Amino acid sequence: MDAILTLTCKDQPGIVHSMTSSVLACGGNIIENQQFTDPTTELFVMRTRIESEQSLPEISKTLRDGLAHLNPSISIRETSAKKRAIVLVTKESHCLRDLLYLQELGELPVSIPLVLSNHEDLRALVESHGIRFELLPPQKDEAEAQINKAVLENQIDFIVLARYMQILTEEFCEKYPAQIINIHHSFLPGFKGGKPYHQAHARGVKIIGATAHFVTGDLDEGPIIEQDVAHVSHAATPEDLIAIGRDIERRVLSKAVKLFAEDRIFLAGNRTIIF
Amino acid sequence: MDAILTLTCKDQPGIVHSMTSSVLACGGNIIENQQFTDPTTELFVMRTRIESEQSLPEISKTLRDGLAHLNPSISIRETSAKKRAIVLVTKESHCLRDLLYLQELGELPVSIPLVLSNHEDLRALVESHGIRFELLPPQKDEAEAQINKAVLENQIDFIVLARYMQILTEEFCEKYPAQIINIHHSFLPGFKGGKPYHQAHARGVKIIGATAHFVTGDLDEGPIIEQDVAHVSHAATPEDLIAIGRDIERRVLSKAVKLFAEDRIFLAGNRTIIF
Amino acid sequence: MDAILTLTCKDQPGIVHSMTSSVLACGGNIIENQQFTDPTTELFVMRTRIESEQSLPEISKTLRDGLAHLNPSISIRETSAKKRAIVLVTKESHCLRDLLYLQELGELPVSIPLVLSNHEDLRALVESHGIRFELLPPQKDEAEAQINKAVLENQIDFIVLARYMQILTEEFCEKYPAQIINIHHSFLPGFKGGKPYHQAHARGVKIIGATAHFVTGDLDEGPIIEQDVAHVSHAATPEDLIAIGRDIERRVLSKAVKLFAEDRIFLAGNRTIIF
Amino acid sequence: MDAILTLTCKDQPGIVHSMTSSVLACGGNIIENQQFTDPTTELFVMRTRIESEQSLPEISKTLRDGLAHLNPSISIRETSAKKRAIVLVTKESHCLRDLLYLQELGELPVSIPLVLSNHEDLRALVESHGIRFELLPPQKDEAEAQINKAVLENQIDFIVLARYMQILTEEFCEKYPAQIINIHHSFLPGFKGGKPYHQAHARGVKIIGATAHFVTGDLDEGPIIEQDVAHVSHAATPEDLIAIGRDIERRVLSKAVKLFAEDRIFLAGNRTIIF
Repeated sequence: MDAILTLTCKDQPGIVHSMTSSVLACGGNIIENQQFTDPTTELFVMRTRIESEQSLPEISKTLRDGLAHLNPSISIRETSAKKRAIVLVTKESHCLRDLLYLQELGELPVSIPLVLSNHEDLRALVESHGIRFELLPPQKDEAEAQINKAVLENQIDFIVLARYMQILTEEFCEKYPAQIINIHHSFLPGFKGGKPYHQAHARGVKIIGATAHFVTGDLDEGPIIEQDVAHVSHAATPEDLIAIGRDIERRVLSKAVKLFAEDRIFLAGNRTIIF
Repeated sequence: MDAILTLTCKDQPGIVHSMTSSVLACGGNIIENQQFTDPTTELFVMRTRIESEQSLPEISKTLRDGLAHLNPSISIRETSAKKRAIVLVTKESHCLRDLLYLQELGELPVSIPLVLSNHEDLRALVESHGIRFELLPPQKDEAEAQINKAVLENQIDFIVLARYMQILTEEFCEKYPAQIINIHHSFLPGFKGGKPYHQAHARGVKIIGATAHFVTGDLDEGPIIEQDVAHVSHAATPEDLIAIGRDIERRVLSKAVKLFAEDRIFLAGNRTIIF
Repeated sequence: MDAILTLTCKDQPGIVHSMTSSVLACGGNIIENQQFTDPTTELFVMRTRIESEQSLPEISKTLRDGLAHLNPSISIRETSAKKRAIVLVTKESHCLRDLLYLQELGELPVSIPLVLSNHEDLRALVESHGIRFELLPPQKDEAEAQINKAVLENQIDFIVLARYMQILTEEFCEKYPAQIINIHHSFLPGFKGGKPYHQAHARGVKIIGATAHFVTGDLDEGPIIEQDVAHVSHAATPEDLIAIGRDIERRVLSKAVKLFAEDRIFLAGNRTIIF
Repeated sequence: MDAILTLTCKDQPGIVHSMTSSVLACGGNIIENQQFTDPTTELFVMRTRIESEQSLPEISKTLRDGLAHLNPSISIRETSAKKRAIVLVTKESHCLRDLLYLQELGELPVSIPLVLSNHEDLRALVESHGIRFELLPPQKDEAEAQINKAVLENQIDFIVLARYMQILTEEFCEKYPAQIINIHHSFLPGFKGGKPYHQAHARGVKIIGATAHFVTGDLDEGPIIEQDVAHVSHAATPEDLIAIGRDIERRVLSKAVKLFAEDRIFLAGNRTIIF
């Protein structure tokens, strides 16, 4: 079998050696390994891909036992296992379309059993991909209750806000730490609040961008996963900026979802380590 | 002769026709022409390069007379005439070096008769290029008086702040509207205030940038001329960001100075039109 | 009405003045104007957007009469009129999907009455967008005859090869000069022939790209319209390069189609002028 | 002490474990570790930064002994030790200036005891940085003999061709495998031979680039280290392309030299692995 091990722990001597010993102990071979020690938080993070003749429960036990003394946070899964996501949308389709397209193409190793929205607009698009669509009720507490239920019933690993134009409650956000990915239509830091492309136009910027980040209780302030930009000229109207922005948002969100699905994102305080 | 005409006026019918008529009237031929009507300010801006057998005073009179009814703001100069700049620096050399290097190479059509600084650090570098170096006094009013004097005595067209780590008084800034170019070590908007690369690191951004802008009385809020960015990873320390930032700052400031020197920057409210 | 005038002629004095005079003569106002004189071919090209109270036939006659002495190549059309395209595909959907998506979004001012393919694979995708799909016969002469017929019957302005994996005959290409846009999965120049991403991998390049170009009889050698690139690392497999390449191809082809649809591409010998 | 270990060997089980065991055996701690298995060549490459209380000879012996069974190619050096380079130039200064500037700034951990050139043009620039300048004789065999002598006498680790406009003999190139870095003023592949920017202009490309690569006997065909590009418009003359190209060449060569100086480049056949 082929498995992905991720490990986060306090930096200390002998971590990699413990990992390599444990891998040997389960007859494994290291296919890929990436590690980083964050000097600010003194966290050590590692992502290792392992091949072994043994089963997942077997290597899982051996690795967990061999690394337990590091007091780590560990995940182990088969490389081919797909993470399960629900996508929340409102009316705009560009980010959702890109996710569905890349998934169909086999480039995005995620399962999307369900798309939820507070509007009906994208039902046809979602259902044409053979995915279930559910309308959320207008009351925030009821909507979040329905999302919570969907997460449980569908064994969901993470939630993607693909231009979901609602602010989630702090309580909801804290229930899913580093499990909700949002696309923000601006740099972070950048223009805060509404109509960022209009603000960008008014300010006369020559570059616009978008940011994919984890959602925390503090709006637009979660750890940044991925950012990208495009150069724009004086001739671009706010509408042109919105169109250019759509292309950036789409790319940045899909990239962040792919990184998450491949266990390549690690938290170190308010920052991310990306392998 | 070969001349550059720039024109800014309220948008109104017949502007280009008045220009082409005037160019014909002075036996001229249009080599390049760019124009833009800014919908926000309703300003029309135009940059035209003209060839003519007549002298600069002759074509200047014909063009000014032929365009006077538009109540425009006009400039006319020989294409080969170089704008004259003074450069203000503190201790960091990267932006200054790039300006001097590009000027020597013939890529930056400016004359730099003088570099002023509030520290001695860069004197040797400046003088090795055969350029005069003057130390500014520590008191802000005396320093600005000395800069004003230097501008007058050297027929200076614009002032370049190449990492000049002093805040100019509002009075000084307003004396040179759209004539002072600063390089800001961040996007605008972005991290305000000191140590932006440390702020960028703390925030965990994946992209850093720099902004060249005109200086107004409102610190870091003048019209943006040019911006550029670089992608950075979690492994970059604040010091790495500073090094990457130096390369962006250097490129962005030199580009802005070149645009100014070639009369390619127009103001429309708080935004710039760049040809 | 609002119209786009394009003009190409030998460079000569008085062209812009003739245009502005003709625009005044039809009570018009110039909204946008771009021009360029290509020093290599001595061609003058201009794209002008005009507002007028008069009808298209009226301003068309006035402009054509007023500019006839320049012996120009001219086109005049309503700004809101959409160019009509057919898209040729084989099995890969990424470029086609992007065109259909941008068209639905209103960002691509084209009409696509028909998609033609030498395989059935994309029929469902095309028909789900309410667009007719036609299968081409395997014999090249019959296939090209069917395309020719489709062009005539649907008043087609240009042909888009969205990963159409057939080489068109020289005769066919010459029938549609500067009217067939292809996406090439490489820089031009770059890797010639098949499997360019495998070649790129074998050569160990750190950047890959794609090129949209007009098709001429000389394979992969037509005038370049648009190019873009992405950085790639040693870890990218040929399959990764293909996936990254898909994203570049998609963006580059859609950009080129948009430029064509907006009359922003001019030919000057084997090069393009892009406004 | 702080040391960099690099290792290249045939891929086989237990490599990382052998490394971590050896590091423990010399009381070391792993600060950074990067590894990659190249599927094409089946080579395993690893770069490890180690902290230890022991001396360089001590850890060097322990590591070499502990890894010997892998039959590896190994290098171990103090992290602060600077690699020594000679730079070969002709008349153009932009790449040399950038290397000298970055070195002075402390961003380029190399020692440059000597610059050699077949022309006198850059003597003053070199000597103003306190570096020795030597003129090479016109005969190729004598020039290469002088370079060989300089390499020996100055304990040189690598040779940088910073726009050195001479073709080195195959014999010379093979004497320094993966030790000569050249900057090529084009993509690879791309325009071969002379005047690539003129060729790029004639072909009407929308992107130009530069490539830093190791020099092999086969001209312009060595393993690629780094590439970068810039977008260019139809308005750019060949001279504009040359100027834009200078900026790309400069950045790309300095980046490649930095990667080499930090032991981040590994060869895998004709490709490079870059950490």
